[in-house]
Amino acid sequence: MPTIGEVVILSMPRGKSLLRYIEENKDIHTQDGVIKVEDLCNASYGSELETTTGVPYRVQRPTIYDIVKGVKRQTQVMYPKDISYICMRLGIGPGKVIVEAGSGSGGLTMALSWFVGSEGHVHTFEAREEFFKLVKSNLDKAGLGHNVSLYNKNIEVGFGEVKNADALFLDVRTPWEYLQFIPEAVAPGAMLAFLLPTANQVSSLLLGLEKGPFEDIDVCEVLIRHWKPIADRLRPDDRMIAHTGFIVFARYQKKSDKWDSYKSLGTRERKQEEARKARSQNIDK
Amino acid sequence: MPTIGEVVILSMPRGKSLLRYIEENKDIHTQDGVIKVEDLCNASYGSELETTTGVPYRVQRPTIYDIVKGVKRQTQVMYPKDISYICMRLGIGPGKVIVEAGSGSGGLTMALSWFVGSEGHVHTFEAREEFFKLVKSNLDKAGLGHNVSLYNKNIEVGFGEVKNADALFLDVRTPWEYLQFIPEAVAPGAMLAFLLPTANQVSSLLLGLEKGPFEDIDVCEVLIRHWKPIADRLRPDDRMIAHTGFIVFARYQKKSDKWDSYKSLGTRERKQEEARKARSQNIDK
Amino acid sequence: MPTIGEVVILSMPRGKSLLRYIEENKDIHTQDGVIKVEDLCNASYGSELETTTGVPYRVQRPTIYDIVKGVKRQTQVMYPKDISYICMRLGIGPGKVIVEAGSGSGGLTMALSWFVGSEGHVHTFEAREEFFKLVKSNLDKAGLGHNVSLYNKNIEVGFGEVKNADALFLDVRTPWEYLQFIPEAVAPGAMLAFLLPTANQVSSLLLGLEKGPFEDIDVCEVLIRHWKPIADRLRPDDRMIAHTGFIVFARYQKKSDKWDSYKSLGTRERKQEEARKARSQNIDK
Amino acid sequence: MPTIGEVVILSMPRGKSLLRYIEENKDIHTQDGVIKVEDLCNASYGSELETTTGVPYRVQRPTIYDIVKGVKRQTQVMYPKDISYICMRLGIGPGKVIVEAGSGSGGLTMALSWFVGSEGHVHTFEAREEFFKLVKSNLDKAGLGHNVSLYNKNIEVGFGEVKNADALFLDVRTPWEYLQFIPEAVAPGAMLAFLLPTANQVSSLLLGLEKGPFEDIDVCEVLIRHWKPIADRLRPDDRMIAHTGFIVFARYQKKSDKWDSYKSLGTRERKQEEARKARSQNIDK
Repeated sequence: MPTIGEVVILSMPRGKSLLRYIEENKDIHTQDGVIKVEDLCNASYGSELETTTGVPYRVQRPTIYDIVKGVKRQTQVMYPKDISYICMRLGIGPGKVIVEAGSGSGGLTMALSWFVGSEGHVHTFEAREEFFKLVKSNLDKAGLGHNVSLYNKNIEVGFGEVKNADALFLDVRTPWEYLQFIPEAVAPGAMLAFLLPTANQVSSLLLGLEKGPFEDIDVCEVLIRHWKPIADRLRPDDRMIAHTGFIVFARYQKKSDKWDSYKSLGTRERKQEEARKARSQNIDK
Repeated sequence: MPTIGEVVILSMPRGKSLLRYIEENKDIHTQDGVIKVEDLCNASYGSELETTTGVPYRVQRPTIYDIVKGVKRQTQVMYPKDISYICMRLGIGPGKVIVEAGSGSGGLTMALSWFVGSEGHVHTFEAREEFFKLVKSNLDKAGLGHNVSLYNKNIEVGFGEVKNADALFLDVRTPWEYLQFIPEAVAPGAMLAFLLPTANQVSSLLLGLEKGPFEDIDVCEVLIRHWKPIADRLRPDDRMIAHTGFIVFARYQKKSDKWDSYKSLGTRERKQEEARKARSQNIDK
Repeated sequence: MPTIGEVVILSMPRGKSLLRYIEENKDIHTQDGVIKVEDLCNASYGSELETTTGVPYRVQRPTIYDIVKGVKRQTQVMYPKDISYICMRLGIGPGKVIVEAGSGSGGLTMALSWFVGSEGHVHTFEAREEFFKLVKSNLDKAGLGHNVSLYNKNIEVGFGEVKNADALFLDVRTPWEYLQFIPEAVAPGAMLAFLLPTANQVSSLLLGLEKGPFEDIDVCEVLIRHWKPIADRLRPDDRMIAHTGFIVFARYQKKSDKWDSYKSLGTRERKQEEARKARSQNIDK
Repeated sequence: MPTIGEVVILSMPRGKSLLRYIEENKDIHTQDGVIKVEDLCNASYGSELETTTGVPYRVQRPTIYDIVKGVKRQTQVMYPKDISYICMRLGIGPGKVIVEAGSGSGGLTMALSWFVGSEGHVHTFEAREEFFKLVKSNLDKAGLGHNVSLYNKNIEVGFGEVKNADALFLDVRTPWEYLQFIPEAVAPGAMLAFLLPTANQVSSLLLGLEKGPFEDIDVCEVLIRHWKPIADRLRPDDRMIAHTGFIVFARYQKKSDKWDSYKSLGTRERKQEEARKARSQNIDK
């Protein structure tokens, strides 16, 4: 049953739904009239309630997808398509510790909090005070604040006391300026992800990552194409979201001369072979 | 430190990596020679080991992405892009209970086990014995079997003893034949997902879902476009995976005449308006 | 120089442009005032004219892309992305003869007329009178009617007197009902194209085409992704057109028993091999 | 009927096809035996011939799509998806004059020659001698050389004697170095297109174009997604071409101070309005 201090989904018969925070003595106002907060707290999930005008609304337990989509935002909130893929690539799961900057409207922060559970922890940095407050409020309302440390500061001097995190995510304008602080904050072998709107930013970040100590660099985009769910006239939607951001992944690795020599050997050998090939072709002529 | 009975990632300097299960007294054989299992169990994550031919290999803790990509398969294993999006839409997270059929090679099963953690549970049905054994072995080796009940039976008579699951996923050829069993197995309001390779299957499933009691039907595809990670010559890869499957989402809802009348009212009203319009256009002529 | 009876592009400094038909004694009215038709007919292409409020407008010779984009429409006009690809696959070019049904708003008809030139010919069928009139008017205004025969009838009894066309295009709801008339209208080996919004229609058409006499069947979609043209913040547009229609291509071939036996031989042989394989696997067990 | 000096498509029953140049006294050798050149020249298009081993082959008139796909290449030839869209955006059609550099393997050159017909003309520049010869040979064999002037020189000093072309296309590594020569070679208002593999090149070109005198700048990608043409198991192909190149379009415009002042006025006005808004919001607080 829904409880004071939680969020709930109220679904309407015509296909829309509301994400609402349940507060003591605060009835829920909808376009079809009022739902009493006592009624809501006595309803089981999946059951039906009537608004004061008699319209049936359904009471649903929200998924993390519902929460991210329904959250109050001041910036563009991250999209579920990006959040879910990032979480899987970063190895987020129960018990993991992750560090994030900047929190933005808290879309990813909520998902991280959801996936790491009561034994994990999320450290999130947000420099702008209004966003810091918004994320705090969004987390509280979604009942997801318990495993989150939220810092109202920028990362110009690093990630504070955070050490040995399992993974790191940066959604800042110039992430290449903070790469130097990553080794102090994460465990060797930790996965890193960066979200960037423009191709120019991706180039700048790649330049930074190439200097090391980072490996397994990957750049990608996630696209979702929705279809009209009509059995006998099945076709894609007319329009789709064509871009949210490029995602860059990397792994932090400790510096090792031996490793580097083996890595570059590959290149050197390849060059030798190319030179050999070029020579033999000249002889053929 | 890696332990007997776990999986580990061994990264090579040239960019490849191996997912290996650590067994007692079994040294790891690579293309660059042998890594002793004792050495492996004494190495910390992120550290470097040398093979018998002197090549440095890195010891990494695998993410669920690494595990799904590295798993032994007999069918096409599900792709991380689909797994991650499905998990988020289904609201998978610590403590959740989910039912799945068929398990296939266990790609999604492992991800579900990872995300629900020690307080959640996964029920998975697989009729074909060779796959049943493969999933079991894959789960064991990935250290992910503890919260999974694996049934070697088909779902022609339903989902057995499973009741009140938070979510359900079907990866079977004719999911529309099993919709009738869903209400017994999941909680009201539970999210459902289906993976289907062809458009014809999507149409057949939509026909089944329309009969109810299901709502919030959504059909989509997830696409990942990788880019070559070269700062000064940034461009997408030449080729990409263009199709794995269509994903259909829905929510199970208890049957309600009141709800249905309000839902259809919308349609009826719309028809009335259309009729009115048609009439007024005739008058104009 | 622009001439009475032609279309012209008028570009505004803020990035918009108008496609306008030049008529005798009819000045052009814009949001920035009037452009006199005499001034327009004395201006060279690429030159600048001033509206009565002093705003400079540029006089451009329209491309076929400008014409298709600027045309008056009552249905969804076909998109340049689809038109251009279809024209190339159909082998449209100077001197070719093509038959089309239905004309719709005439988007493709205009492009066909443009590409076949004065020595080619376009036959186009449109059953609905209001569209028939619209296409005629659109062609006239675009100065593209000279090589087009426009028929105000449906194709329920075939393509009339048209014989030996080099290519055929159908944009009708149930193209599979008219396949029988194709052999009479096109030359052996002619390329065919069909535009269909839904996957169900594609399936129905494929069923029809499989019965022959058609070969080289291909189904595809054309997608265009636009980018924001900003040098230092290069990124794709936020949204894109995700679907206009599926395009099906085929080639009409004369029925030949010898050809069919060789074609099916392939299948038969493959079946024999599969049977042999299956047998040998049973023996292995 | 096919003639000496033309190209022809020979289709095999199993779905493959050959593009072959017909030369005097040269029989066609296939994997199924020989087709005599006299037989070929006596066959009508669409008819069937037998190889010396008795396999039926069909004689087809090639479309420009067949020619581009079948051409001999040393570089990556341009794809039909890009060629067709570029031709439409550039307004290519019968009678048009176009200038191109560099010709590469001649894929676009052949398409331009095809579309402009006997009254149009193509000027194409190729600095590398081996490609110059290849394009010449490819054009000759495709029977498309008659309306093409092929120059074996680079464009470091411009486009030679070419004046007043209707359109221009550049497929060179650093197109921004040659923008200065465009006004001499094309008519005012002419459409321009550029094909570039990397995002970095697009940025560099945009920087150049912004300096003028160019307008209507547009950046895009064309994607084709093929589907398996099976009626009852309709689904996209597993893989697709994910990238060939970015296409940049622009229009050459004569420099005009009046136009520029109106263009920039827009920006200035917008800034004034924004400033006014910002002030009024402060007052509200």
